Amino acid sequence: MDRVYNFSAGPSMLPLEVLEKAQAELLCYGDSGMSVMEMSHRTPEFEEILHSAEDSLRKLMNIPSNYKVLFLQGGASTQFAAVPMNLLSEHKCADYIVSGQFSKKASMEAKKYGDIAIAASSAGATPTFSTIPETKRADFRPDADYVHICFNNTIYGTKFHYIPDTGNIPLVADMSSCIVSEPVDVSKFGLIYAGAQKNVAPAGVTIVIVRNDLIGNARPDTPAMLDYKLMAENDSMYNTPPCWCIYMAKLVFDWILSIGGLEEMKRRNEKKASLLYDYLDSQTYYAAPVDKKCRSMMNVVFVTGDAELDKKFAKEAAEAGLKNLKGHRSVGGMRASIYNAMPYEGVEKLVEFMKEFALKNPKIGE
Amino acid sequence: MDRVYNFSAGPSMLPLEVLEKAQAELLCYGDSGMSVMEMSHRTPEFEEILHSAEDSLRKLMNIPSNYKVLFLQGGASTQFAAVPMNLLSEHKCADYIVSGQFSKKASMEAKKYGDIAIAASSAGATPTFSTIPETKRADFRPDADYVHICFNNTIYGTKFHYIPDTGNIPLVADMSSCIVSEPVDVSKFGLIYAGAQKNVAPAGVTIVIVRNDLIGNARPDTPAMLDYKLMAENDSMYNTPPCWCIYMAKLVFDWILSIGGLEEMKRRNEKKASLLYDYLDSQTYYAAPVDKKCRSMMNVVFVTGDAELDKKFAKEAAEAGLKNLKGHRSVGGMRASIYNAMPYEGVEKLVEFMKEFALKNPKIGE
Repeated sequence: MDRVYNFSAGPSMLPLEVLEKAQAELLCYGDSGMSVMEMSHRTPEFEEILHSAEDSLRKLMNIPSNYKVLFLQGGASTQFAAVPMNLLSEHKCADYIVSGQFSKKASMEAKKYGDIAIAASSAGATPTFSTIPETKRADFRPDADYVHICFNNTIYGTKFHYIPDTGNIPLVADMSSCIVSEPVDVSKFGLIYAGAQKNVAPAGVTIVIVRNDLIGNARPDTPAMLDYKLMAENDSMYNTPPCWCIYMAKLVFDWILSIGGLEEMKRRNEKKASLLYDYLDSQTYYAAPVDKKCRSMMNVVFVTGDAELDKKFAKEAAEAGLKNLKGHRSVGGMRASIYNAMPYEGVEKLVEFMKEFALKNPKIGE
Repeated sequence: MDRVYNFSAGPSMLPLEVLEKAQAELLCYGDSGMSVMEMSHRTPEFEEILHSAEDSLRKLMNIPSNYKVLFLQGGASTQFAAVPMNLLSEHKCADYIVSGQFSKKASMEAKKYGDIAIAASSAGATPTFSTIPETKRADFRPDADYVHICFNNTIYGTKFHYIPDTGNIPLVADMSSCIVSEPVDVSKFGLIYAGAQKNVAPAGVTIVIVRNDLIGNARPDTPAMLDYKLMAENDSMYNTPPCWCIYMAKLVFDWILSIGGLEEMKRRNEKKASLLYDYLDSQTYYAAPVDKKCRSMMNVVFVTGDAELDKKFAKEAAEAGLKNLKGHRSVGGMRASIYNAMPYEGVEKLVEFMKEFALKNPKIGE
């Protein structure tokens, strides 16, 4: 069986070179005589993997020294609780920008722990969440403990084209679907978190990058495993970390460094996204429902306007080796997730297929 | 580099057949055209893996139909909080048997959420925790919401040789270091949990087996990801599960089934443990400090009685391909963790090495 182009929203493609390396050393890592999957996290070999993963991520993202890097478990959904449990102060007050289902979920979860306001929302857009709300400093409560955003909205195919100006209020960003896809100024954020399963590694590790001054204020009833202070003090090894996923993350970070870091990653991602968006803008068979200035570079949503045709498209594309193009059930249509590991050739093949499909399936009345 | 015998307390050895299968299909699982690590959890292929993992575990452990099986993240340490958050009722009262560091940690974490009593402890034994407390029904508060035990104590090498009689009070057991090592009557427990990294899979997935009537009572401020009801309703897919670790768990469960299930697993584990304990009991160079009737079948602790010799032993054993025999820092000496995947030959080699080491390194004054 040949490998396919997998347009899944996550988990998603990993670089072939990385998979081949993981396969080659699966039975025996270096001269350890064992698989990374079998390795005690307390051995020098694994500690080297963990520290090297952190070093490579710091280098890639140019993370300032006053930020801790944590490798945790439980996905972004666990951070939806951990963020308010750690960051809410006595005021217990935070503002959320709602730009999709995950930021909404994050705000709902936070309401268990404090006074959460929706500072801005694009739920009312047509179609819903097809744009990113504009905000200005005055939209946020001056005593808010933090402002939360979801930087790239996987389901709706939108992305923040600006970093909200929150003044002195720490900005918290869920970057699950765009981390390490392009350079980002970490110093503009108080905390960045990301589930790994889109751009970084197999599902099972969550990256948290948190400014030192935001660590150490967890509510007394915070579960130990959600307390950033305990995690930071123990170097992400308060208990056994998800070793294999951290190892895979290290391989992916090193792969990005080897091709030229995030500047080159961005160039490649822009090239892929442009190919697809330029085609979408050049014809009328398919529509791209997202506000142009808020388009995601990672998740490209498009529709034929006919649910039956959409279904046929996803089915026939899969048969042609272009898998998982069916859109999210709440949006319909198609979604091509073209994360870091999707080769340019995959997007070329997709555009070719789109052209052929349009020719073969003229719409009634056109 | 040859593969070694890895006596690590966890993460630890995986069956070679399982690793070889994982390696063979790492680039392409079945006819999916992709790695399991790249596979969306919403695909039929992955759902089949998840359900098959659950089916195999149910078959292996003979889990009654009124129990849910969950595959979660965060390790046993996350369950230390999840258990009280889900199981404490209005009484907010639970009893813990403390038989080692992890059960002590579990009780400390639970104190964040309720009135936790230590019903029995073996901390005062000599050496500390070298036995398992005896308990009777009257030791538990009649209004306790549950009684918590750690069934096998990885650090101290002890194991419950009886199931505490708690009457109608649900018994909760941390089985991280002994799950699927031998048959256990699940119906005697209200809830069983286990980090996977010792007997089941790479670190990153936690198994929770919970009786239906104990689901649905979580405190309102329980993080969604720690709420058994949400996890059960969503079939462990409230968010992206740790797919690769679940896949590996499935391969391990199928391997145990293929060799004859838990009866055969127990026979093999007893044979390995007997070889080592019988040798320990037959000589005086090494001492086994654990109460004989509470000996663990998984973690065998022994000492020479001389810290320098212990150090030399661990170092030279590692050079001979017998790795990670150094005891836990709080116990000293040596610890041989001989989980399911440790072959009999590994224990044979260890006993051989122990004999040679004793001959080559006579103790001063003997």
